[in-house]
Amino acid sequence: MPPKQSLGPQPLLYPEPALLIASYAEDGKPNVMTAAWGGICSSDPLSLTVSIRSAPYSHGAILVRRAFTVNIASEEMMVGMDFAGIVSGRKYDKFAATGWTAIKAEKVDAPYIDESPVVLECRLSQTVQVGVHTMFIAEILDVKADVSCLDETGIFPDVAKVKPIVFDSGSKNYYGLGKLLGRGFSCGKELIEKE
Amino acid sequence: MPPKQSLGPQPLLYPEPALLIASYAEDGKPNVMTAAWGGICSSDPLSLTVSIRSAPYSHGAILVRRAFTVNIASEEMMVGMDFAGIVSGRKYDKFAATGWTAIKAEKVDAPYIDESPVVLECRLSQTVQVGVHTMFIAEILDVKADVSCLDETGIFPDVAKVKPIVFDSGSKNYYGLGKLLGRGFSCGKELIEKE
Repeated sequence: MPPKQSLGPQPLLYPEPALLIASYAEDGKPNVMTAAWGGICSSDPLSLTVSIRSAPYSHGAILVRRAFTVNIASEEMMVGMDFAGIVSGRKYDKFAATGWTAIKAEKVDAPYIDESPVVLECRLSQTVQVGVHTMFIAEILDVKADVSCLDETGIFPDVAKVKPIVFDSGSKNYYGLGKLLGRGFSCGKELIEKE
Repeated sequence: MPPKQSLGPQPLLYPEPALLIASYAEDGKPNVMTAAWGGICSSDPLSLTVSIRSAPYSHGAILVRRAFTVNIASEEMMVGMDFAGIVSGRKYDKFAATGWTAIKAEKVDAPYIDESPVVLECRLSQTVQVGVHTMFIAEILDVKADVSCLDETGIFPDVAKVKPIVFDSGSKNYYGLGKLLGRGFSCGKELIEKE
Protein backbone atom coordinates (compact mmCIF):
# COMPACT_ATOMS: atom_id res chain seq x y z
CA MET A 1 0.00 0.00 0.00
CA PRO A 2 1.13 3.62 -0.54
CA PRO A 3 2.59 5.29 2.56
CA LYS A 4 0.28 7.39 4.71
CA GLN A 5 1.00 10.89 5.91
CA SER A 6 -0.17 12.30 9.22
CA LEU A 7 -2.27 15.45 8.70
CA GLY A 8 -3.04 16.12 12.37
CA PRO A 9 -6.58 16.54 13.72
CA GLN A 10 -8.75 17.72 10.79
CA PRO A 11 -12.49 17.48 10.03
CA LEU A 12 -11.83 15.32 6.96
CA LEU A 13 -14.80 13.03 6.67
CA TYR A 14 -16.23 12.23 3.22
CA PRO A 15 -18.82 12.93 2.01
CA GLU A 16 -20.20 15.78 4.10
CA PRO A 17 -23.61 17.34 3.46
CA ALA A 18 -24.55 20.98 2.93
CA LEU A 19 -27.67 21.32 5.06
CA LEU A 20 -29.92 24.35 5.35
CA ILE A 21 -31.22 24.69 8.91
CA ALA A 22 -34.34 26.86 9.11
CA SER A 23 -35.99 28.27 12.23
CA TYR A 24 -38.10 31.19 13.36
CA ALA A 25 -36.15 33.95 15.10
CA GLU A 26 -37.51 35.34 18.35
CA ASP A 27 -39.35 38.07 16.41
CA GLY A 28 -41.04 35.40 14.28
CA LYS A 29 -39.06 36.02 11.11
CA PRO A 30 -37.87 32.93 9.26
CA ASN A 31 -34.11 32.49 9.22
CA VAL A 32 -31.78 29.91 7.71
CA MET A 33 -28.16 28.91 8.16
CA THR A 34 -25.89 26.39 6.48
CA ALA A 35 -24.38 23.48 8.40
CA ALA A 36 -22.11 20.69 7.20
CA TRP A 37 -21.93 18.92 10.51
CA GLY A 38 -25.03 16.85 10.97
CA GLY A 39 -26.66 13.57 10.09
CA ILE A 40 -29.02 10.81 11.12
CA CYS A 41 -28.25 9.42 14.60
CA SER A 42 -31.01 6.98 15.51
CA SER A 43 -33.62 4.82 13.79
CA ASP A 44 -36.09 4.71 16.69
CA PRO A 45 -37.22 7.32 17.34
CA LEU A 46 -35.89 8.55 14.00
CA SER A 47 -33.47 11.30 14.97
CA LEU A 48 -30.73 13.49 13.59
CA THR A 49 -28.07 15.83 14.92
CA VAL A 50 -26.91 19.23 13.80
CA SER A 51 -23.90 20.90 15.43
CA ILE A 52 -23.97 24.69 15.75
CA ARG A 53 -21.70 27.05 17.69
CA SER A 54 -23.35 29.41 20.15
CA ALA A 55 -22.63 32.50 18.03
CA PRO A 56 -25.07 32.00 15.11
CA TYR A 57 -28.50 33.63 15.38
CA SER A 58 -30.11 30.22 14.81
CA HIS A 59 -28.60 28.76 17.99
CA GLY A 60 -30.80 30.75 20.36
CA ALA A 61 -33.81 30.56 18.07
CA ILE A 62 -33.76 26.76 18.04
CA LEU A 63 -33.46 26.62 21.84
CA VAL A 64 -36.53 28.87 22.28
CA ARG A 65 -38.93 27.08 19.92
CA ARG A 66 -37.25 23.66 20.21
CA ALA A 67 -37.85 23.14 16.52
CA PHE A 68 -36.10 23.46 13.16
CA THR A 69 -36.20 22.01 9.68
CA VAL A 70 -33.35 20.47 7.73
CA ASN A 71 -33.60 21.41 4.08
CA ILE A 72 -31.55 19.57 1.48
CA ALA A 73 -29.85 22.02 -0.88
CA SER A 74 -30.13 20.96 -4.51
CA GLU A 75 -27.49 22.00 -7.03
CA GLU A 76 -29.70 24.90 -8.16
CA MET A 77 -29.62 26.25 -4.58
CA MET A 78 -25.82 26.33 -4.26
CA VAL A 79 -25.29 30.09 -4.37
CA GLY A 80 -28.02 30.74 -1.81
CA MET A 81 -26.81 27.86 0.36
CA ASP A 82 -23.28 29.25 0.40
CA PHE A 83 -24.60 32.77 1.13
CA ALA A 84 -26.64 31.43 4.08
CA GLY A 85 -23.42 30.08 5.58
CA ILE A 86 -21.44 33.31 5.20
CA VAL A 87 -23.75 35.99 6.62
CA SER A 88 -25.73 36.29 9.85
CA GLY A 89 -29.49 36.34 10.20
CA ARG A 90 -29.01 39.20 12.65
CA LYS A 91 -28.05 41.42 9.73
CA TYR A 92 -29.64 39.83 6.65
CA ASP A 93 -33.09 38.61 5.74
CA LYS A 94 -31.71 35.51 4.05
CA PHE A 95 -35.04 34.41 2.61
CA ALA A 96 -35.43 37.80 0.91
CA ALA A 97 -31.85 37.81 -0.37
CA THR A 98 -32.04 34.29 -1.81
CA GLY A 99 -35.59 34.63 -3.07
CA TRP A 100 -36.53 31.44 -1.24
CA THR A 101 -40.04 30.90 0.10
CA ALA A 102 -40.56 30.18 3.80
CA ILE A 103 -43.47 27.84 4.46
CA LYS A 104 -44.70 27.08 7.99
CA ALA A 105 -43.91 23.44 8.74
CA GLU A 106 -46.81 21.17 9.54
CA LYS A 107 -45.47 19.25 12.55
CA VAL A 108 -43.12 21.76 14.21
CA ASP A 109 -42.87 25.48 14.92
CA ALA A 110 -40.33 26.22 12.20
CA PRO A 111 -40.31 27.24 8.53
CA TYR A 112 -39.12 25.09 5.66
CA ILE A 113 -37.74 26.19 2.31
CA ASP A 114 -40.25 25.53 -0.44
CA GLU A 115 -37.49 25.46 -3.08
CA SER A 116 -35.72 22.61 -1.28
CA PRO A 117 -36.59 19.22 -2.84
CA VAL A 118 -36.55 17.37 0.51
CA VAL A 119 -37.23 18.85 3.96
CA LEU A 120 -37.16 17.20 7.39
CA GLU A 121 -39.36 18.60 10.16
CA CYS A 122 -37.49 18.20 13.46
CA ARG A 123 -38.39 18.63 17.13
CA LEU A 124 -35.48 19.23 19.50
CA SER A 125 -35.16 16.40 22.00
CA GLN A 126 -31.83 17.10 23.70
CA THR A 127 -28.67 19.15 23.42
CA VAL A 128 -25.15 17.93 24.12
CA GLN A 129 -22.23 20.31 24.40
CA VAL A 130 -19.17 18.99 22.54
CA GLY A 131 -16.40 21.52 22.95
CA VAL A 132 -17.36 24.77 21.27
CA HIS A 133 -20.32 23.24 19.40
CA THR A 134 -23.79 22.49 20.66
CA MET A 135 -25.10 19.27 19.20
CA PHE A 136 -28.84 19.58 18.66
CA ILE A 137 -30.42 16.13 18.74
CA ALA A 138 -33.91 16.17 17.26
CA GLU A 139 -36.64 13.76 16.32
CA ILE A 140 -37.67 13.69 12.66
CA LEU A 141 -41.43 14.05 12.76
CA ASP A 142 -41.96 14.14 9.02
CA VAL A 143 -40.13 14.30 5.71
CA LYS A 144 -41.67 16.23 2.83
CA ALA A 145 -40.43 15.87 -0.72
CA ASP A 146 -41.32 17.43 -4.04
CA VAL A 147 -43.68 15.07 -5.85
CA SER A 148 -41.56 15.60 -8.97
CA CYS A 149 -38.53 14.15 -7.13
CA LEU A 150 -40.09 10.85 -6.07
CA ASP A 151 -38.87 7.59 -7.57
CA GLU A 152 -41.12 5.12 -9.38
CA THR A 153 -42.27 3.57 -6.08
CA GLY A 154 -43.53 6.94 -4.84
CA ILE A 155 -42.10 6.11 -1.41
CA PHE A 156 -38.62 7.63 -1.62
CA PRO A 157 -37.03 10.55 -3.41
CA ASP A 158 -34.92 9.67 -6.45
CA VAL A 159 -31.54 11.04 -5.40
CA ALA A 160 -30.65 11.75 -9.03
CA LYS A 161 -33.61 14.17 -9.11
CA VAL A 162 -32.85 15.64 -5.67
CA LYS A 163 -29.32 16.52 -6.87
CA PRO A 164 -27.84 17.06 -3.38
CA ILE A 165 -24.60 18.96 -2.89
CA VAL A 166 -21.55 17.24 -1.40
CA PHE A 167 -19.22 19.44 0.65
CA ASP A 168 -15.49 18.76 0.92
CA SER A 169 -14.16 20.18 4.17
CA GLY A 170 -10.59 20.07 2.90
CA SER A 171 -10.79 22.15 -0.28
CA LYS A 172 -14.10 23.80 0.78
CA ASN A 173 -15.45 22.92 -2.65
CA TYR A 174 -18.95 21.75 -3.47
CA TYR A 175 -19.50 18.70 -5.66
CA GLY A 176 -22.46 17.05 -7.31
CA LEU A 177 -23.54 13.45 -6.98
CA GLY A 178 -21.79 11.03 -9.34
CA LYS A 179 -22.78 7.82 -11.02
CA LEU A 180 -24.47 4.80 -9.50
CA LEU A 181 -21.81 2.39 -8.21
CA GLY A 182 -23.77 -0.46 -6.67
CA ARG A 183 -26.56 -1.63 -4.46
CA GLY A 184 -26.27 -1.56 -0.67
CA PHE A 185 -26.89 -4.65 1.47
CA SER A 186 -26.40 -6.58 -1.74
CA CYS A 187 -23.12 -6.12 -3.63
CA GLY A 188 -21.11 -7.35 -0.61
CA LYS A 189 -22.85 -10.71 -0.55
CA GLU A 190 -20.32 -12.12 -2.98
CA LEU A 191 -17.82 -12.21 -0.12
CA ILE A 192 -20.22 -14.25 2.02
CA GLU A 193 -20.46 -16.91 -0.68
CA LYS A 194 -16.68 -17.13 -0.88
CA GLU A 195 -16.37 -18.29 2.73
CA MET B 1 -43.11 25.45 -6.60
CA PRO B 2 -44.10 21.81 -7.15
CA PRO B 3 -46.34 20.36 -4.43
CA LYS B 4 -44.68 18.44 -1.62
CA GLN B 5 -45.73 15.02 -0.39
CA SER B 6 -45.45 13.86 3.20
CA LEU B 7 -43.33 10.71 3.47
CA GLY B 8 -43.54 10.31 7.25
CA PRO B 9 -40.47 9.99 9.48
CA GLN B 10 -37.63 8.64 7.34
CA PRO B 11 -33.82 8.86 7.53
CA LEU B 12 -33.64 10.79 4.25
CA LEU B 13 -30.68 13.08 4.59
CA TYR B 14 -28.41 13.66 1.58
CA PRO B 15 -25.59 12.89 1.13
CA GLU B 16 -24.81 10.21 3.70
CA PRO B 17 -21.38 8.65 4.08
CA ALA B 18 -20.37 4.98 4.06
CA LEU B 19 -17.90 4.82 6.94
CA LEU B 20 -15.84 1.84 8.02
CA ILE B 21 -15.49 1.77 11.80
CA ALA B 22 -12.55 -0.35 12.97
CA SER B 23 -11.78 -1.51 16.49
CA TYR B 24 -10.07 -4.33 18.34
CA ALA B 25 -12.43 -6.98 19.70
CA GLU B 26 -11.96 -8.12 23.27
CA ASP B 27 -9.72 -10.96 22.08
CA GLY B 28 -7.50 -8.43 20.29
CA LYS B 29 -8.61 -9.31 16.76
CA PRO B 30 -9.24 -6.36 14.45
CA ASN B 31 -12.87 -5.95 13.41
CA VAL B 32 -14.69 -3.51 11.18
CA MET B 33 -18.30 -2.51 10.59
CA THR B 34 -20.04 -0.14 8.21
CA ALA B 35 -21.96 2.88 9.46
CA ALA B 36 -23.81 5.55 7.52
CA TRP B 37 -24.83 7.55 10.54
CA GLY B 38 -21.95 9.68 11.63
CA GLY B 39 -20.10 12.90 10.97
CA ILE B 40 -18.07 15.74 12.38
CA CYS B 41 -19.69 17.37 15.43
CA SER B 42 -17.23 19.89 16.85
CA SER B 43 -14.27 21.96 15.72
CA ASP B 44 -12.62 22.28 19.15
CA PRO B 45 -11.73 19.73 20.25
CA LEU B 46 -12.16 18.27 16.79
CA SER B 47 -14.76 15.57 17.28
CA LEU B 48 -17.07 13.27 15.39
CA THR B 49 -20.00 11.00 16.16
CA VAL B 50 -20.87 7.52 15.01
CA SER B 51 -24.23 5.94 15.93
CA ILE B 52 -24.27 2.18 16.52
CA ARG B 53 -26.99 -0.05 17.97
CA SER B 54 -26.04 -2.22 20.94
CA ALA B 55 -26.22 -5.46 18.93
CA PRO B 56 -23.10 -5.14 16.72
CA TYR B 57 -19.88 -6.71 17.98
CA SER B 58 -18.13 -3.34 17.61
CA HIS B 59 -20.41 -1.67 20.17
CA GLY B 60 -18.91 -3.49 23.16
CA ALA B 61 -15.42 -3.42 21.73
CA ILE B 62 -15.42 0.38 21.42
CA LEU B 63 -16.69 0.77 24.98
CA VAL B 64 -13.87 -1.40 26.35
CA ARG B 65 -10.92 0.25 24.57
CA ARG B 66 -12.59 3.66 24.18
CA ALA B 67 -11.05 3.92 20.73
CA PHE B 68 -11.86 3.35 17.08
CA THR B 69 -10.86 4.54 13.65
CA VAL B 70 -13.10 5.92 10.92
CA ASN B 71 -11.92 4.72 7.54
CA ILE B 72 -13.21 6.36 4.37
CA ALA B 73 -14.27 3.72 1.83
CA SER B 74 -13.03 4.53 -1.66
CA GLU B 75 -14.94 3.29 -4.71
CA GLU B 76 -12.55 0.34 -5.01
CA MET B 77 -13.58 -0.76 -1.49
CA MET B 78 -17.33 -0.86 -2.17
CA VAL B 79 -17.86 -4.62 -2.13
CA GLY B 80 -15.87 -5.07 1.10
CA MET B 81 -17.58 -2.05 2.67
CA ASP B 82 -21.02 -3.45 1.89
CA PHE B 83 -19.97 -6.89 3.19
CA ALA B 84 -18.74 -5.34 6.45
CA GLY B 85 -22.22 -3.91 6.97
CA ILE B 86 -24.07 -7.18 6.33
CA VAL B 87 -22.24 -9.74 8.48
CA SER B 88 -21.17 -9.78 12.13
CA GLY B 89 -17.62 -9.78 13.44
CA ARG B 90 -18.74 -12.45 15.88
CA LYS B 91 -18.95 -14.88 12.97
CA TYR B 92 -16.61 -13.50 10.31
CA ASP B 93 -13.01 -12.33 10.23
CA LYS B 94 -13.88 -9.37 8.03
CA PHE B 95 -10.28 -8.33 7.44
CA ALA B 96 -9.50 -11.83 6.14
CA ALA B 97 -12.64 -11.97 3.98
CA THR B 98 -12.04 -8.56 2.38
CA GLY B 99 -8.29 -8.95 2.12
CA TRP B 100 -7.81 -5.64 3.89
CA THR B 101 -4.75 -4.98 6.05
CA ALA B 102 -5.20 -3.98 9.70
CA ILE B 103 -2.53 -1.57 10.93
CA LYS B 104 -2.26 -0.55 14.59
CA ALA B 105 -3.18 3.12 14.83
CA GLU B 106 -0.56 5.48 16.21
CA LYS B 107 -2.62 7.58 18.61
CA VAL B 108 -5.35 5.20 19.78
CA ASP B 109 -5.81 1.53 20.67
CA ALA B 110 -7.56 0.56 17.44
CA PRO B 111 -6.64 -0.70 13.98
CA TYR B 112 -7.02 1.22 10.77
CA ILE B 113 -7.50 -0.13 7.25
CA ASP B 114 -4.36 0.37 5.20
CA GLU B 115 -6.34 0.22 1.94
CA SER B 116 -8.49 3.17 3.01
CA PRO B 117 -7.22 6.44 1.49
CA VAL B 118 -8.11 8.52 4.58
CA VAL B 119 -8.36 7.30 8.18
CA LEU B 120 -9.30 9.20 11.35
CA GLU B 121 -7.91 8.00 14.69
CA CYS B 122 -10.55 8.62 17.35
CA ARG B 123 -10.64 8.45 21.14
CA LEU B 124 -14.07 8.01 22.72
CA SER B 125 -14.99 11.00 24.84
CA GLN B 126 -18.67 10.40 25.66
CA THR B 127 -21.67 8.30 24.73
CA VAL B 128 -25.24 9.53 24.40
CA GLN B 129 -28.15 7.15 24.08
CA VAL B 130 -30.60 8.31 21.41
CA GLY B 131 -33.42 5.78 21.28
CA VAL B 132 -32.07 2.42 20.14
CA HIS B 133 -28.73 3.85 19.00
CA THR B 134 -25.69 4.73 21.05
CA MET B 135 -24.02 7.83 19.76
CA PHE B 136 -20.27 7.53 20.22
CA ILE B 137 -18.73 10.99 20.46
CA ALA B 138 -14.99 10.88 19.93
CA GLU B 139 -12.07 13.25 19.57
CA ILE B 140 -10.15 13.07 16.30
CA LEU B 141 -6.52 12.76 17.41
CA ASP B 142 -5.05 12.40 13.94
CA VAL B 143 -5.97 11.99 10.29
CA LYS B 144 -3.76 9.89 8.05
CA ALA B 145 -4.03 9.97 4.27
CA ASP B 146 -2.31 8.19 1.43
CA VAL B 147 0.44 10.44 0.14
CA SER B 148 -0.78 9.66 -3.39
CA CYS B 149 -4.19 11.22 -2.51
CA LEU B 150 -2.92 14.59 -1.31
CA ASP B 151 -3.68 17.72 -3.31
CA GLU B 152 -1.03 20.08 -4.64
CA THR B 153 -0.74 21.87 -1.29
CA GLY B 154 0.10 18.62 0.50
CA ILE B 155 -2.16 19.69 3.37
CA PHE B 156 -5.46 18.12 2.37
CA PRO B 157 -6.56 15.05 0.44
CA ASP B 158 -7.80 15.70 -3.10
CA VAL B 159 -11.35 14.39 -2.86
CA ALA B 160 -11.29 13.40 -6.55
CA LYS B 161 -8.44 11.01 -5.68
CA VAL B 162 -10.07 9.79 -2.46
CA LYS B 163 -13.17 8.77 -4.46
CA PRO B 164 -15.51 8.47 -1.44
CA ILE B 165 -18.78 6.59 -1.67
CA VAL B 166 -22.09 8.38 -1.14
CA PHE B 167 -24.91 6.31 0.38
CA ASP B 168 -28.57 6.98 -0.39
CA SER B 169 -30.72 5.76 2.51
CA GLY B 170 -33.83 5.75 0.37
CA SER B 171 -32.83 3.46 -2.51
CA LYS B 172 -29.93 1.92 -0.51
CA ASN B 173 -27.72 2.58 -3.53
CA TYR B 174 -24.12 3.71 -3.50
CA TYR B 175 -22.99 6.60 -5.68
CA GLY B 176 -19.68 8.16 -6.63
CA LEU B 177 -18.71 11.78 -6.29
CA GLY B 178 -19.76 14.01 -9.18
CA LYS B 179 -18.33 17.10 -10.77
CA LEU B 180 -17.07 20.24 -9.07
CA LEU B 181 -19.95 22.71 -8.69
CA GLY B 182 -18.44 25.68 -6.91
CA ARG B 183 -16.30 27.04 -4.15
CA GLY B 184 -17.56 27.21 -0.56
CA PHE B 185 -17.50 30.46 1.44
CA SER B 186 -17.12 32.17 -1.91
CA CYS B 187 -19.79 31.54 -4.56
CA GLY B 188 -22.52 32.95 -2.26
CA LYS B 189 -20.81 36.34 -1.99
CA GLU B 190 -22.63 37.54 -5.10
CA LEU B 191 -25.79 37.78 -3.00
CA ILE B 192 -24.00 40.02 -0.49
CA GLU B 193 -23.06 42.44 -3.23
CA LYS B 194 -26.66 42.62 -4.39
CA GLU B 195 -27.86 43.99 -1.05
